[in-house]
Amino acid sequence: MADFHQKINMSEKRTELSTIGEFGLIERISAQTVHYQSGTQLGIGDDAAVLEIPQGEQLLVSTDMLAEGIHFDLGFTPLHLLGYKAVAVNLSDIAAMNAIPRQIVISLALSNRFSIEAIDALYLGINQACKEYNVDLVGGDTTTSRAGLIISITALGSQVPEKIVKRSGAKVGDLICVSGDLGAAYMGLQILSREKKVFEVDPDMQPELKEDHAYLIQRQLKAEARTDIVHELAEIGVVPNAMIDISDGLASELLHIAKSSNVGIQIFEDKLPIENLTRLAASDFGLSPITCALNGGEDYELLFTVPQSDFEKVKKMEDVSIIGVIREAASGKKLVLRSDQVIEITAQGWTHF
Amino acid sequence: MADFHQKINMSEKRTELSTIGEFGLIERISAQTVHYQSGTQLGIGDDAAVLEIPQGEQLLVSTDMLAEGIHFDLGFTPLHLLGYKAVAVNLSDIAAMNAIPRQIVISLALSNRFSIEAIDALYLGINQACKEYNVDLVGGDTTTSRAGLIISITALGSQVPEKIVKRSGAKVGDLICVSGDLGAAYMGLQILSREKKVFEVDPDMQPELKEDHAYLIQRQLKAEARTDIVHELAEIGVVPNAMIDISDGLASELLHIAKSSNVGIQIFEDKLPIENLTRLAASDFGLSPITCALNGGEDYELLFTVPQSDFEKVKKMEDVSIIGVIREAASGKKLVLRSDQVIEITAQGWTHF
Repeated sequence: MADFHQKINMSEKRTELSTIGEFGLIERISAQTVHYQSGTQLGIGDDAAVLEIPQGEQLLVSTDMLAEGIHFDLGFTPLHLLGYKAVAVNLSDIAAMNAIPRQIVISLALSNRFSIEAIDALYLGINQACKEYNVDLVGGDTTTSRAGLIISITALGSQVPEKIVKRSGAKVGDLICVSGDLGAAYMGLQILSREKKVFEVDPDMQPELKEDHAYLIQRQLKAEARTDIVHELAEIGVVPNAMIDISDGLASELLHIAKSSNVGIQIFEDKLPIENLTRLAASDFGLSPITCALNGGEDYELLFTVPQSDFEKVKKMEDVSIIGVIREAASGKKLVLRSDQVIEITAQGWTHF
Repeated sequence: MADFHQKINMSEKRTELSTIGEFGLIERISAQTVHYQSGTQLGIGDDAAVLEIPQGEQLLVSTDMLAEGIHFDLGFTPLHLLGYKAVAVNLSDIAAMNAIPRQIVISLALSNRFSIEAIDALYLGINQACKEYNVDLVGGDTTTSRAGLIISITALGSQVPEKIVKRSGAKVGDLICVSGDLGAAYMGLQILSREKKVFEVDPDMQPELKEDHAYLIQRQLKAEARTDIVHELAEIGVVPNAMIDISDGLASELLHIAKSSNVGIQIFEDKLPIENLTRLAASDFGLSPITCALNGGEDYELLFTVPQSDFEKVKKMEDVSIIGVIREAASGKKLVLRSDQVIEITAQGWTHF
């Protein structure tokens, strides 16, 4: 756990970026790059990458920008985990279309407080994620920034048209399914923020990170894209009617599906996948675990709807929970509590402005 | 010319971004978006865009990041022209592969000094460039920044494999060709920087922008991608052996081709396309026009090599100059001056670190 508190510089050594320059940096990044995709005809080093899309498949494109102080805090985020997470959250958007991620391009804006060693650490995580997900880094750009680190990633994927899943396809009667568990990443962030404050008051004080917290902190710092669910759905022959990934919290994503598909939502408190560790931590912080699951965000799980005829198949998926049913639009967006009380689902989401 | 000095806010009105929020901004941008490409199956609004690559063609991907204070100065850059230029310089990279640009995604990091009106101005230029180049804006992300504006664009294009042109294909004996003229954008930047200093000393002073300077300033502020050259090469049946766009200056790009293709370069001073307006302005500033052409940068012209058998065809291209010949690697990278003196080509380029 100790390394969660390490500072920006991964090693004692500090080499200024100016010693190798922009072209030197490109060569350094390029030399560390491995290609896993046969479709990558030409990677880093020319005016553009050249890619072959598998025959009969369409291209999926998604882009995300992560800004220091908004999306991450380098006070408690090791750079290699940040690099990993930046890639994973982008691939999650491709998985959310039921597609296979294949390539990424990455642009960085850096201030001169970043050394070559710091950039190496960031790319260590980026390359680790590429290896984990069989994705190729095929291009990028690096520039100076007047303040803070900004990471911009565009992810490319592909899929046959009949398997591409949008937010807009949910049908009345569909089962609402979610992968993994919810709220843990949010509780991880609460714990890290609290420990950071303790650390700022007394840097010599050992952070009080219980073993129980390891899972929650990992969920916050090392996000994973559920590409395994995309593969599993293909294996069992299920194509969801609608799908989205959970970045802003379950509530916000349910409302996106409801709006895009023009349907109503009914989910059940007792079906929501919330780990006991999350419940315990929420209790420590005086938070409702339901609120963490609904509005916490950064779970990067997949939320999808399937026709009831797929019930038997989906029930057998080990890491998927059926949490509710798609209703007529007129019946609204409802959460049925254990007490049978029914409450309206509202999005708090994340407002970055 | 007066509008080159207008400030960030295009209108008197100033509406805070917080009044519409992130989803409101996405809807606003999406509502202004027009699709020109039949391959764009799904644009802004889902987890990813869905694109169809033309049958038999490969995908080209390029990405660029522009940072305030590094790549542009909002003190003299109207936001609509900045939006236009940001798109054009990315499309230039696709054109440099002899490919047709088709879609872009754009991410912005903004500080809260940017109003909705300012973002509208930026997108006015972005949408104008999309229309001009028949390119679709299919996705993006927007976040707050702690300082300065950062624009990250990824451009997608396509071409049949046999027409894709890399930097590495130049052959000994090839003619070295360049589109348009060189050094003008650099002189435009010098003029704008000088006028900005005058303006900062006395904001009421009218900038001394001569009519002669209009072309140079336009070359700096309203860059264009030479997709017309890509179409013209296709029409006359010429596929260059090597191609690159001139972003860092002719010298730097020639050295890239020489290195990638393992060849030597011989170019001639008297063949370099430099406008008289550029020469006059350079003289005013005590600069050599040759230096402006070789090391100025931001011309966004295409530099390419063709076999000598294409001489007759290329000679007829109205806006293309033949400036030299590809030699054996051992003969070096040389510029032959009018005086017959031969000098080594060295890159100053742009070092952003």
